[in-house]
Amino acid sequence: MYSLHSTPRHDGFHMPAEWAPHAQTWMVWPERTDNWRMGAKPAQAAFAEVARAIASFEPVTVCVSAAQYENASLQLDHPGIRVIEISSDDAWVRDTGPTFVINGQGGLRGVDWTFNAWGGFNGGLYWPWQRDDQVADKILGLERCPRYRTEGFVLEGGAIHVDGEGTVLTTEECLLNSNRNPELARQEIELMLADYLNIEKVIWLPYGLFNDETDGHIDNFCCFIRPGEVLLAWTDDEDDPNYQRCHAALKVLQASRDAQGRDLVVHRMPIPGPLYATAEECVGVDRVTGTQPRDPSIRLAGSYVNFLIVNDGIVVPGFDEPEDQAALDILQELFPERRVVMVPGREILLGGGNVHCITQQQPAR
Amino acid sequence: MYSLHSTPRHDGFHMPAEWAPHAQTWMVWPERTDNWRMGAKPAQAAFAEVARAIASFEPVTVCVSAAQYENASLQLDHPGIRVIEISSDDAWVRDTGPTFVINGQGGLRGVDWTFNAWGGFNGGLYWPWQRDDQVADKILGLERCPRYRTEGFVLEGGAIHVDGEGTVLTTEECLLNSNRNPELARQEIELMLADYLNIEKVIWLPYGLFNDETDGHIDNFCCFIRPGEVLLAWTDDEDDPNYQRCHAALKVLQASRDAQGRDLVVHRMPIPGPLYATAEECVGVDRVTGTQPRDPSIRLAGSYVNFLIVNDGIVVPGFDEPEDQAALDILQELFPERRVVMVPGREILLGGGNVHCITQQQPAR
Repeated sequence: MYSLHSTPRHDGFHMPAEWAPHAQTWMVWPERTDNWRMGAKPAQAAFAEVARAIASFEPVTVCVSAAQYENASLQLDHPGIRVIEISSDDAWVRDTGPTFVINGQGGLRGVDWTFNAWGGFNGGLYWPWQRDDQVADKILGLERCPRYRTEGFVLEGGAIHVDGEGTVLTTEECLLNSNRNPELARQEIELMLADYLNIEKVIWLPYGLFNDETDGHIDNFCCFIRPGEVLLAWTDDEDDPNYQRCHAALKVLQASRDAQGRDLVVHRMPIPGPLYATAEECVGVDRVTGTQPRDPSIRLAGSYVNFLIVNDGIVVPGFDEPEDQAALDILQELFPERRVVMVPGREILLGGGNVHCITQQQPAR
Repeated sequence: MYSLHSTPRHDGFHMPAEWAPHAQTWMVWPERTDNWRMGAKPAQAAFAEVARAIASFEPVTVCVSAAQYENASLQLDHPGIRVIEISSDDAWVRDTGPTFVINGQGGLRGVDWTFNAWGGFNGGLYWPWQRDDQVADKILGLERCPRYRTEGFVLEGGAIHVDGEGTVLTTEECLLNSNRNPELARQEIELMLADYLNIEKVIWLPYGLFNDETDGHIDNFCCFIRPGEVLLAWTDDEDDPNYQRCHAALKVLQASRDAQGRDLVVHRMPIPGPLYATAEECVGVDRVTGTQPRDPSIRLAGSYVNFLIVNDGIVVPGFDEPEDQAALDILQELFPERRVVMVPGREILLGGGNVHCITQQQPAR
């Protein structure tokens, strides 16, 4: 439709917290066979299960290529799921979709961040990524939402979490990485976040989860559960490479105040595993030079923090691990007013992310 | 979203007349180089001009392939035009898009006719046509409209015109053609039209315009302008192959009553030309076996009847011919309450149709 040349902050728009009411959730159908094993069929089944789980709470729109349109339509045949044609390079709409912003008066717009496949030619996960970079524009056009395009400023939606009251949570590992916005200093990045999310305060955790191929996205590691409270992936095992990461994060969180001046309550979520792909799971991935290798020796960045908050619910990945039940219990206790649903997350994890990474909420006007 | 297994008639839905209020108009971006000369660039410019003309009256959505998304978005940069990704085999949304039906109580649904590229392997214009056959489904899904799929019943939107009061106008040349629904008798086809358009009366003209590659679509030949009144393409030149066609149609129209029992007032619209493509215009079309040949010796089926009624307006093709002014005057007199806009129609005609063929109105709820 049309692009705006101001900023959300200037226009009185801000990114609401994930727990604010949604109009719908967006997803993208997985199909690239050099990332998803066995022609992406197990992943498609897993994505369909996520879509159906969300659709029991709120409408879902799934974007799919022309080639997969018929198959996806049949697999997603559900009155709460809309299948539309939008092509992409992979299926991570958290990172390629728009960040929706609202003004509290019925206005809905979107931020279309520049996308470079998590690092461009300096450690990015694939090339080309042009179709992925168009996803946000296409979604916003389709919803007739005016668009803020951050020409040249690289950010993925999975790299930020907001509390809706002026605070954003992110990681230095990702946002200060030389493969994102190397020409910008920390303070300049803070200004961009302030302008486009309309926040007052950035809380920088040093790292995300170990071996997260996104360079430490916050959404696989730590999130707000309500204003003043966060949930942090946690291990007490000193031999786990995540040990230092969790403790470094805790230290920052305990020393931080949010934009409203509150101290933060930190809840802890056990990290499952350690999880690894089996040799069998790695065999069915097309081998293409330059894409992320899949190998049984590489630890998977599995995390229960990678859940999505939906209207009246929580959709969280499970891994058939002993920690699954604890994760469910923790979430149900933290969100007593929501129904917590666990969906099989392993196939999504094998591709490099989980429920939160493959979804993007569209707030209600 | 979901398909219905009943019929519009059963559910109290009907196709409104084109002059009923619209929510928007749909178009599809042209790009196939074996139908549109010079890489489809002149046609794209012409389609963009049609889109802008319509957008001055009502919203427009243009469907475009992934490959042409960026180019189309830039060429169609206009606050009233939405560009979305829907792939297709060509650009005739009148024939590939849904026929929208309403119930007068806010309900909006769509009929998704089976499409076979105007004749399938028996005189059809290209193969494959699978993407074209999916266009209606995709549009309806996108608009969250429940869908009536006429499995196996072939019809194009350009083959019908309704008065919104129980009457449909069509041609035997098209609907009784052995390349559409050869297994159905005239009465069975009438029953299908009755069920899916919710009409009571079919008026069958013997033919459409001479050399119309759609096998005589009504929308290039004769249309309702209001209940009880039609506009018929006309020539008084006995040597014109259209002479017999026009007079045969007039005879039927003068002998017909509509569903409400009214006699029909028949207005006449001069046929421009005769029009032919120049050798230069034919050179830039890719030559592919089995597609429609483009040759300066083949008469073009140019017609001013191929206009679109939009909210408060009429968008009609012009041909830089002496009859252009008469056509404008006739339409302005027939539609005194609407603003009549003439757009360059020659490039669209070279591809085999005109303004009405490349548009599909979505009625207001």
